[in-house]
Amino acid sequence: MWMRRDRLLVTAILGSLLTVDIYFVLLPKLQEKYLKEDCTCQESGSRAEGRWHNSSSAVPGGTRGPGITPVAHQTWARDSRSKLQQLFDHPLYNIRTPALKPEELLLQTEESLSYYKRKVSRWNRHQKYYNAVAAAVNFSTVAHAGAFNPEASWVKFHLGINRYALYARDDPNIDQLLRDMGSSTIVSADYTQDEKVLKGMCDCTQVVKPSGHHLKLALKFQNFGKAMFKPKRQERHDETPEDFFYFVDFQRHNAEIAAFHLDRILDFRRVPPVAGRLINVSKEILHITRNEDLKSVFFISPANNTCFFAKCLYVCKTEYAVCGNPDMLEGSMSAYLPGLTIAPRLSIPNPWIRSYSFTGKEEWEVNPFYCDAVKQLYPYNAGNRLINIIDMAIFDFLIGNMDRHHYEIFTKFGDDGFLLHFDNARGFGKPSHDEISILAPLIQCCIIKRSTLLRLRLLSHAEYRLSEVMRESLQRDALQPILTEPHLQALDRRLARVLRATQKCIKKFGEQHVVAEDFVETQRTAGPNSR
Amino acid sequence: MWMRRDRLLVTAILGSLLTVDIYFVLLPKLQEKYLKEDCTCQESGSRAEGRWHNSSSAVPGGTRGPGITPVAHQTWARDSRSKLQQLFDHPLYNIRTPALKPEELLLQTEESLSYYKRKVSRWNRHQKYYNAVAAAVNFSTVAHAGAFNPEASWVKFHLGINRYALYARDDPNIDQLLRDMGSSTIVSADYTQDEKVLKGMCDCTQVVKPSGHHLKLALKFQNFGKAMFKPKRQERHDETPEDFFYFVDFQRHNAEIAAFHLDRILDFRRVPPVAGRLINVSKEILHITRNEDLKSVFFISPANNTCFFAKCLYVCKTEYAVCGNPDMLEGSMSAYLPGLTIAPRLSIPNPWIRSYSFTGKEEWEVNPFYCDAVKQLYPYNAGNRLINIIDMAIFDFLIGNMDRHHYEIFTKFGDDGFLLHFDNARGFGKPSHDEISILAPLIQCCIIKRSTLLRLRLLSHAEYRLSEVMRESLQRDALQPILTEPHLQALDRRLARVLRATQKCIKKFGEQHVVAEDFVETQRTAGPNSR
Repeated sequence: MWMRRDRLLVTAILGSLLTVDIYFVLLPKLQEKYLKEDCTCQESGSRAEGRWHNSSSAVPGGTRGPGITPVAHQTWARDSRSKLQQLFDHPLYNIRTPALKPEELLLQTEESLSYYKRKVSRWNRHQKYYNAVAAAVNFSTVAHAGAFNPEASWVKFHLGINRYALYARDDPNIDQLLRDMGSSTIVSADYTQDEKVLKGMCDCTQVVKPSGHHLKLALKFQNFGKAMFKPKRQERHDETPEDFFYFVDFQRHNAEIAAFHLDRILDFRRVPPVAGRLINVSKEILHITRNEDLKSVFFISPANNTCFFAKCLYVCKTEYAVCGNPDMLEGSMSAYLPGLTIAPRLSIPNPWIRSYSFTGKEEWEVNPFYCDAVKQLYPYNAGNRLINIIDMAIFDFLIGNMDRHHYEIFTKFGDDGFLLHFDNARGFGKPSHDEISILAPLIQCCIIKRSTLLRLRLLSHAEYRLSEVMRESLQRDALQPILTEPHLQALDRRLARVLRATQKCIKKFGEQHVVAEDFVETQRTAGPNSR
Repeated sequence: MWMRRDRLLVTAILGSLLTVDIYFVLLPKLQEKYLKEDCTCQESGSRAEGRWHNSSSAVPGGTRGPGITPVAHQTWARDSRSKLQQLFDHPLYNIRTPALKPEELLLQTEESLSYYKRKVSRWNRHQKYYNAVAAAVNFSTVAHAGAFNPEASWVKFHLGINRYALYARDDPNIDQLLRDMGSSTIVSADYTQDEKVLKGMCDCTQVVKPSGHHLKLALKFQNFGKAMFKPKRQERHDETPEDFFYFVDFQRHNAEIAAFHLDRILDFRRVPPVAGRLINVSKEILHITRNEDLKSVFFISPANNTCFFAKCLYVCKTEYAVCGNPDMLEGSMSAYLPGLTIAPRLSIPNPWIRSYSFTGKEEWEVNPFYCDAVKQLYPYNAGNRLINIIDMAIFDFLIGNMDRHHYEIFTKFGDDGFLLHFDNARGFGKPSHDEISILAPLIQCCIIKRSTLLRLRLLSHAEYRLSEVMRESLQRDALQPILTEPHLQALDRRLARVLRATQKCIKKFGEQHVVAEDFVETQRTAGPNSR
């Protein structure tokens, strides 16, 4: 028989043990389990709500009508608390640029449309000829022919490029272009022009030349738009090995996508639109390409996946191939700019170029007064070129891109034209590392555009935190998640470093010498409309 | 106030909850925690006890005396319950082979010693000349000169090679050789002969040729012994990507080490001894090599590590380099066999060679009666060659090596000589996959040596389980752990598959047609001494 006190004691002991156990073991376990599930639910919920490819999947392929697409607007309107929308609604993102004069557009509409029509006719003629030959040799063909549509998103993108940016802030056509690149039928695949130049010319005695991991392809859509495809080479969580030089790092398709979104969030709009896409490498590349060289690099792997590798001499080994699963392969689709025939560009060495050798150092790395010399030199001695270079350095620092050896400008806009932020696939390689040397132009010149500084400050506020608006923006891509959390967090950390560097300059030289009134800023007007 | 029944109920409920919780949550947690720690303790204990490099670290570099080294014996004797020792004490591992006649040794002692003496004198002359030149140009040199020691472990290894195996079962000199390769001072480093042949001759139009990832080096020790160094290219847990063809897979230094141990455990003794070693790539390669080509491929990585890459045209990119940390790099050291001048070898295509192309198939892959054809052909139509091939297939199946395109034999021992199991660095790539096609010779010919079968059966018994004796054997290497657990477990699984395949043959054709009485077996005698 139990004594009353014993029973109380046992109850008390058991009760305490249970409490301790519930608190330290069961509760954490439950929290872990259910909080995790919660996250997943939220995530998948937001995925289902905010993506282009969901809204566009109802209209696969083909071209679309002009103007604002209702589907896109629905997507944006659905989330009334969208931080990204709040950001784009902010007055800083609604500075009116002056009305564009015809000469401030990159292309003249009539001339360009007639040029594109001629190109399309030529393509259709070749197509006809190819079909006839294919029929003669009893070879099945999937060649397509179609009419040129002046309202196609890529045409409108080209016609919208102006002296201020590649596209207007609120241009709904850009979302349409992204959707089109993500879903339009691909009718032709080929090496890009620079791949063709490389072919058979790899000088392997030159160990320091940029890597041979070029596997990019030029893809043409049914509506005659073109995109550059860069296939996935790494998992999202893979980091650049610490022993890799920046110039031999892998090219990352997700870095291309993320860089476009960041550039838009920074309101630079100097990166051509990039969308992620899952490509069927057999049906959408191998079966439709007419380039025999490209066909010849395809093979079936031991795991029965369709793979291909670059043609260049030193990467003809299958270990450098990319493979579908079994045919499906992720990649980035970057919109092509107008061809050099109608919109010539200049490629100019970056004054803060790196040595591209194992041991060499460039002057800017050893001379802290390097910027004084640059400031004396044309075209950095007048106009916006130098502050444009500093914008680019800030952009590259944020994405961690050390490989900006050249920059490009449109010849038409002269020295004051904006710099194109091309080729960002070597960004987002090391989330835990901030390569402060990329900021050298800002740190050495101590000058920054007012508009850039104001936006950077805005993005460092909790309300518009860069990582959060980036996360939201990237969720709209078909291949989301595009960046891992460490990469998103790195953006906030790096942004803070840019602001600290700027503050140091202001403290040293005074705001009037550091913060440059750029033309966007000087012509600021009230009103919600951009462009 | 509580009622008595309430109290009892609460006690009962709390008691049951606590019991359930203890059983399902706390107990498993405790088990997990303490069992794991137990394992680690055991492991680190056995590590400390049973390694060569611990016992040999007291006598670094230089040559050692002849006969059985006391240090080695201490190591073996300390663990009285060693499964490996039990295995080697088993009668199956103590079959006496007939006393060796002089012509059954690979080398004639006097002739070989005088050959080696001449080589050493030449090396010393070159050394002297080099030192004089270096002094003249005020160039510091670390060149060494020494006397030839006929008792050096490498010399004794060479002189012990006979028509039955590369070394005798209980030869204490092999452990000495392993210790020497793991610690002797390195006095010279150079490309291997086949690297030199490759130099500048990579035919990159031939996409299917074996990979360019050759980074092996020939290292010479102060006692004039030589070893082939293959650096670490992968982490132990890295697996061969599923899309890699076997002929472009990485070479794994740990596979070389593990293959030697497995070969010895199987009592084949056809793999030259291999020891792991941590090399200082600056001091032990870069600073002592006189090959300018080799010097030129060294560089300092962005992470300040010393790296080097292969010279071959298509791998001159730094992304294919290996790097020390900052100078220290793991690698395998494989003992050199006597040079071809004094011990010529033949390299013969494996009848079960693979196609080494993306799509091609060899006859054995499509014709189940392929072995009947092979059996008609010289030298497979008589003697031991075919059952030797099957031994090799079993060995390759166990390590998962698909890359056995050729095999080598010593010319001197004629067609009945054993096959050398060279170049095993492409084994141990996929622990979860058993590549049954490697077993084709056994499955198609349905023949196996009795001695091999008996040993395989022994190693499948719990008392001598292959994974356990391998784990124990590999713990003696300086770079242990050499294989991850999944690789060790795979050995047991594959061994079971070999035995099942053999059983199937026996069931089909009867034991007398399947189990071949090999010469070791036919000359079995009692007694514990081998050789």
